[in-house]
Amino acid sequence: MTQSPKLNLNEAMAVLERTPASLSALLLDLPEPWIRATEGEGTWSPYDVIGHLIHGERTDWIPRVQHIVAGETRPFEKFDRFAQFTDSGGQSLADLLLTFAELRKKNLATLAEMNLTSDDFDRKGMHPELGEVTLGQLLATWVVHDLDHVVQVARTMAKVYTETTGPWIDYLSVLRDRER
Amino acid sequence: MTQSPKLNLNEAMAVLERTPASLSALLLDLPEPWIRATEGEGTWSPYDVIGHLIHGERTDWIPRVQHIVAGETRPFEKFDRFAQFTDSGGQSLADLLLTFAELRKKNLATLAEMNLTSDDFDRKGMHPELGEVTLGQLLATWVVHDLDHVVQVARTMAKVYTETTGPWIDYLSVLRDRER
Repeated sequence: MTQSPKLNLNEAMAVLERTPASLSALLLDLPEPWIRATEGEGTWSPYDVIGHLIHGERTDWIPRVQHIVAGETRPFEKFDRFAQFTDSGGQSLADLLLTFAELRKKNLATLAEMNLTSDDFDRKGMHPELGEVTLGQLLATWVVHDLDHVVQVARTMAKVYTETTGPWIDYLSVLRDRER
Repeated sequence: MTQSPKLNLNEAMAVLERTPASLSALLLDLPEPWIRATEGEGTWSPYDVIGHLIHGERTDWIPRVQHIVAGETRPFEKFDRFAQFTDSGGQSLADLLLTFAELRKKNLATLAEMNLTSDDFDRKGMHPELGEVTLGQLLATWVVHDLDHVVQVARTMAKVYTETTGPWIDYLSVLRDRER
């Protein structure tokens, strides 16, 4: 495994603590066409994404941090990328955004209480598919995963108006990202 | 020119009014490495993007709406895509975010006072490069332009940790978007 640049925990947590408020400011009380839009069959709406982020808070990030810190050598539990399609059932987007914000706050408090140092970021865990990974890589991935889904939400919303922009489509590169 | 789907003004304004708060929640008081990051030479940092959005509020969207509504037949003024590199000089990101929020609020109030109806969206303007465009297309483009830059900000931040994620890079598609 090649050495990857070290994480700065304060900088990482600064992003992680802002994601719920940013997504709430973008999405709360928006008209349904924005919330339920997708990029086509098999792609996720903003509503689906928030459910996915909630499932990550419950089963992925902190459980895997604790797994590594406990010195477990067996692989992490696999993550269910489709849990939100059953878990979110019947809940409003406002409910989901609130749940995400509460879980994230609790998880960041748990992370802070661990008093991790830079040395801890080299501690090893076993990913079920990727093999050996480090705690620092896991925490960096948590941050990038948040931002990846912020990108996805804004890109999916933009595409609702692809045709409505008329000739301006040539200037709006987001409408051509991940063309199907 | 082909006919493009009609704009819903309330739905468009619902997005436009949320962008400043969403970007503020994401960016305000973040450590500098996130704010000043770019995707490489000639690409923009989150700081640069906010300056660009401010310049759009001042010189692009509402002036062009007014140009069309006034029945002007000469082309729109060209938009300066690099104005932020001189205009933002010396200002903090907090100042820029506040300026963007204030200008957007004022511009949406101006738009609301125009009492535009669905028929108005077919009114024609002349773009200096694209040729004939409609008011509806202009307003849809304002919305998509916002979302395009939200995507750009989050994507640029994600790439700060490209190497730090180690083997997870294979799962984080945002790190491969717009590869250089």
